Amino acid sequence: MGVVKVQALEWDGEVLRLIDQTLLPLNQEYVECRDYRCVARAIRQMQVRGAPAIGAAAAFGMVLAVKEAASDPPGFESFMRDAAAELRSTRPTAVNLFWAIGRMEEKLRHLAGEPLPVIIKQMESEAVAIYLEDQEMNRRIGEYGAALVPPGARVLTHCNAGALATTGYGTALGVIRAAHEQGKEITVWADETRPLLQGARLTAWELMQDGIPVTLIADNMAGYLMQQGKVDLIIVGADRITAGGDVANKIGTYSLAVLARAHNIPMYIAAPTSTIDFSLEDGRGIPIEERAPEEMRQMGGHVTAPPGVPVYNPAFDVTPAELITAIITDRGVATPPYRESIGKLAGK
Amino acid sequence: MGVVKVQALEWDGEVLRLIDQTLLPLNQEYVECRDYRCVARAIRQMQVRGAPAIGAAAAFGMVLAVKEAASDPPGFESFMRDAAAELRSTRPTAVNLFWAIGRMEEKLRHLAGEPLPVIIKQMESEAVAIYLEDQEMNRRIGEYGAALVPPGARVLTHCNAGALATTGYGTALGVIRAAHEQGKEITVWADETRPLLQGARLTAWELMQDGIPVTLIADNMAGYLMQQGKVDLIIVGADRITAGGDVANKIGTYSLAVLARAHNIPMYIAAPTSTIDFSLEDGRGIPIEERAPEEMRQMGGHVTAPPGVPVYNPAFDVTPAELITAIITDRGVATPPYRESIGKLAGK
Repeated sequence: MGVVKVQALEWDGEVLRLIDQTLLPLNQEYVECRDYRCVARAIRQMQVRGAPAIGAAAAFGMVLAVKEAASDPPGFESFMRDAAAELRSTRPTAVNLFWAIGRMEEKLRHLAGEPLPVIIKQMESEAVAIYLEDQEMNRRIGEYGAALVPPGARVLTHCNAGALATTGYGTALGVIRAAHEQGKEITVWADETRPLLQGARLTAWELMQDGIPVTLIADNMAGYLMQQGKVDLIIVGADRITAGGDVANKIGTYSLAVLARAHNIPMYIAAPTSTIDFSLEDGRGIPIEERAPEEMRQMGGHVTAPPGVPVYNPAFDVTPAELITAIITDRGVATPPYRESIGKLAGK
Repeated sequence: MGVVKVQALEWDGEVLRLIDQTLLPLNQEYVECRDYRCVARAIRQMQVRGAPAIGAAAAFGMVLAVKEAASDPPGFESFMRDAAAELRSTRPTAVNLFWAIGRMEEKLRHLAGEPLPVIIKQMESEAVAIYLEDQEMNRRIGEYGAALVPPGARVLTHCNAGALATTGYGTALGVIRAAHEQGKEITVWADETRPLLQGARLTAWELMQDGIPVTLIADNMAGYLMQQGKVDLIIVGADRITAGGDVANKIGTYSLAVLARAHNIPMYIAAPTSTIDFSLEDGRGIPIEERAPEEMRQMGGHVTAPPGVPVYNPAFDVTPAELITAIITDRGVATPPYRESIGKLAGK
């Protein structure tokens, strides 16, 4: 199995160490969080990003919060409520964030009445479990997904659903990695993914580090490539999947799905089952984050648009289930009709 | 009629003055060309860009070449051949460049045997005629096109087909300007247009200067806007239109056309008849320029991708006629079937 050389987050028992993804690929600097507010800030500023990665980061944020809360036992419960609320408020679209915080809260409830050192120890174990389970889920996604990738396939991906977006290996890039490890000699087109360029800065960088052939394109070139017959399949990650199979993912995913359909190209989603939101029937209920206009007006301090120009900057869009060929999860591959197939995979 | 405050090129009888479009909107600096090589360089480096504007610039380049050639009468003809060849070699896709150079060459042939001062004077008149005719054509395109724009329309445009892309007023933006002048209270979505950001840097800037409401989006957001019902029509320029109505335009146009069709949104092309290439039956014959990878790896010196990452950087794509609702020209509006309607407009 190939060595994955990038790690979005590391936990040493005291400190959550995050590679600052806003500075990659040029600078490899780390954010070291010793309290939950630091974790919340890092998620909000996208120093850590990617649905599974922010879920795991928030879980460790809850561990840090428990340690902070332990210094004032009478205020413990209200401190934890505030911490969970602040971590939840960081970003609205990726459901893994809420899933991980909810799981940590449930663990905390089960530990009620235990001595504080036990609570701390058990909460840490739960966060580590989330972390390790995510890695394991990515490996399984990779295995299931690689079976769908033909030898020599030219695979297009958008944004970064890689090791950096998860606790390691990646979802969409996990499938790509697994296919590469199986010797399928695939090549990758990486959409640069405006405005924050996760495709250019993170996906291209990850794949180059692993020696997987990658070519960078602007988002607006994807349709032309499909028209020229240069794309065999598309695979992306997900920030939230509804019970009916609608998928929220990085802005631009919907356009790719429409283009894929027009060119008869398979459109695959790769995500762990922790990304499925069974409380939502369809994608209309998914909140779409709008981010600051400055992300579109400058790049690394270099002004790229008239100062003060009005900007619309939605960070995600929703692709309806009918445009999705299959959803690759850690429990298998779901195909239409999704209400049935997703329910079956999740044991519902 | 509204005042158009930006001018791509000015000719004072001696010098061709070009606003350096690579530096807009932050810096308004000018390139002053006193010889044709300077003009060729400016076209190649996209200090002047936009199909009609580079046609006019090349025409003045031919005037400067005639003046240079006049200093060595025995070498006149070969100098002019070299000059025309160098100007032609600057960019391959926009047909207006070849059209304008061809027209200047034909004028030169007709002037054979005339005294050099007459040749210079007449060649200058021809270039000025190309310049003024283009302005006049843009006004007519604006009038014909505005009739297609409903009051309150939310118009999406890509790249810059504005005053800066022409000798003034613009093609796609000419239609937008005319509709605005008619009090139709339209609003504009401007695709930023990677990699060179002509939408962000030039279109948004032009429209803000004219007080036309504009909102900047990333290219990958256009599909989401259409899905949300926030786009009433799309209008873009063209770099080459074939006899059958296939249209080469800035990369990303094809994706917009596919998305427009999927959402039942009209897709309009606005271009002068000088953009029509009757020598080509369909778009497969249009050469597509590929530009330097560095355009995708950095922005204003700020590194945005891993150094050395392979890049594919086509500057144009071809939208097939069947995805185009109408082509708005200075001689009227062509609708399918285009072979007939374009031929009729052009008097062929």
